[in-house]
Amino acid sequence: MKENSKPLILISNDDGYNAGGIRTLIAVAREFGDVVVAAPMKQQSGKASAITITTPLRAKRVKQEEGLTVFLIDGTPADCVKLALDQLLEGRHPDLVLAGINHGYNVGVSTLYSGTMGATFEGLVHHVPSVAFSYGSYDPDADFTVCVPYVRSIIGRVLEQGLPKGTCLNVNIPHDKGELKGVKVTTTSLGLWRNEFERRTDPHGADYYWMAGYYEHENPDDETTDLYWIDRGWVSVTPCKVDQTARGVMGEIADLLT
Amino acid sequence: MKENSKPLILISNDDGYNAGGIRTLIAVAREFGDVVVAAPMKQQSGKASAITITTPLRAKRVKQEEGLTVFLIDGTPADCVKLALDQLLEGRHPDLVLAGINHGYNVGVSTLYSGTMGATFEGLVHHVPSVAFSYGSYDPDADFTVCVPYVRSIIGRVLEQGLPKGTCLNVNIPHDKGELKGVKVTTTSLGLWRNEFERRTDPHGADYYWMAGYYEHENPDDETTDLYWIDRGWVSVTPCKVDQTARGVMGEIADLLT
Repeated sequence: MKENSKPLILISNDDGYNAGGIRTLIAVAREFGDVVVAAPMKQQSGKASAITITTPLRAKRVKQEEGLTVFLIDGTPADCVKLALDQLLEGRHPDLVLAGINHGYNVGVSTLYSGTMGATFEGLVHHVPSVAFSYGSYDPDADFTVCVPYVRSIIGRVLEQGLPKGTCLNVNIPHDKGELKGVKVTTTSLGLWRNEFERRTDPHGADYYWMAGYYEHENPDDETTDLYWIDRGWVSVTPCKVDQTARGVMGEIADLLT
Repeated sequence: MKENSKPLILISNDDGYNAGGIRTLIAVAREFGDVVVAAPMKQQSGKASAITITTPLRAKRVKQEEGLTVFLIDGTPADCVKLALDQLLEGRHPDLVLAGINHGYNVGVSTLYSGTMGATFEGLVHHVPSVAFSYGSYDPDADFTVCVPYVRSIIGRVLEQGLPKGTCLNVNIPHDKGELKGVKVTTTSLGLWRNEFERRTDPHGADYYWMAGYYEHENPDDETTDLYWIDRGWVSVTPCKVDQTARGVMGEIADLLT
């Protein structure tokens, strides 16, 4: 945080600007500095780090008041952060990128599909300390009050101390797990969806498929994971990086290929 | 590879079924076993691991002949692999998931945005040995002949020996770098796009933004990276994993938050 100047905080999400989660995040972030919101015009859940290449983007400024500017963008969460950093912030470099608060967890393999994480990874790629917040309730009218002290504390500490190079944070706040017990630093649990699609037949006799299914956690007893601690009422903070190189098997792959 | 039965190979891509790259990949894969293609109906470059949640998917079988079935799906590359594994393969588990051959590199931070990698990570999540192939030419009419011996050799070895648990391969084949020298096992280079957007004004006076810019490689002298070896005429094979936990900084994050 620079001396004698307010921090600049860029906020995006995947649920759009009318979601309760982003409204809560904006309110807390304004306690710390000037906020620019770059939110998608349409629901962008499950968009991962998708970007828009073959069509151009539009940005509409829908609010400008002391300490808060809001843009809506007809793209993905990653597009929103990219366009804000390159064009909408007019050359200012933000002190922090925040995404969320997502309506629903982004844990386990969901991290791979999450638009909230897509926005956060984009901040990380651009060397801005970046944090994703998600709350366990999928209710569009969820009450985010329980999240506020944790969001406030994490924003304050990250603004003050920064984050290790190449690292962003994926924060998940439990819902319906009793009183919150505190914060645990966790790993992303592995798993996959089973019976992922429900096949239906339309009135014209053609099949179509809805994504559905249930999530199977592969290591439920692993005491390092996001899901383990969320189930026990702790806020999960997973440090994440962009690089997915499997360094541990490079020698094995060299043997296999040569 | 099972004894006394042909391997089953599932192929997807992000350029669609009419692309030259997937046609080359299908032809080589058919030398090894039965091929099922699940390709997107529309161009899906830059779709990362995006999935389709709020609308249902359709699948159209456009070809069924001895050893080759082709489905077109109105979704993302990850959707294609998910729907094939859960529904279209009718309970058979593939021996291999292949994606590509992409028209253009998927190296460096592009790995994060790549639909080709989205399809490949989906195979990995489902515990199928999975390989992405990309060729350096962005030409829709590119000649993939130079790729064929490498694609053939890698498919053969992965079918025979499998891949380490939790690992897929991201293979990039150089274009315009002289005669290919062989294969190097590499890491994903870090970097970012600069001047990412080009602002234009439409005939009605409103601004719009095209994604454009140039890629800045952050560590061009790092002798482990994909870009380093591709520039020198080597085929780059990067082992990748889904888990993005930054394990090395977990203690530091715990200190920061508590």
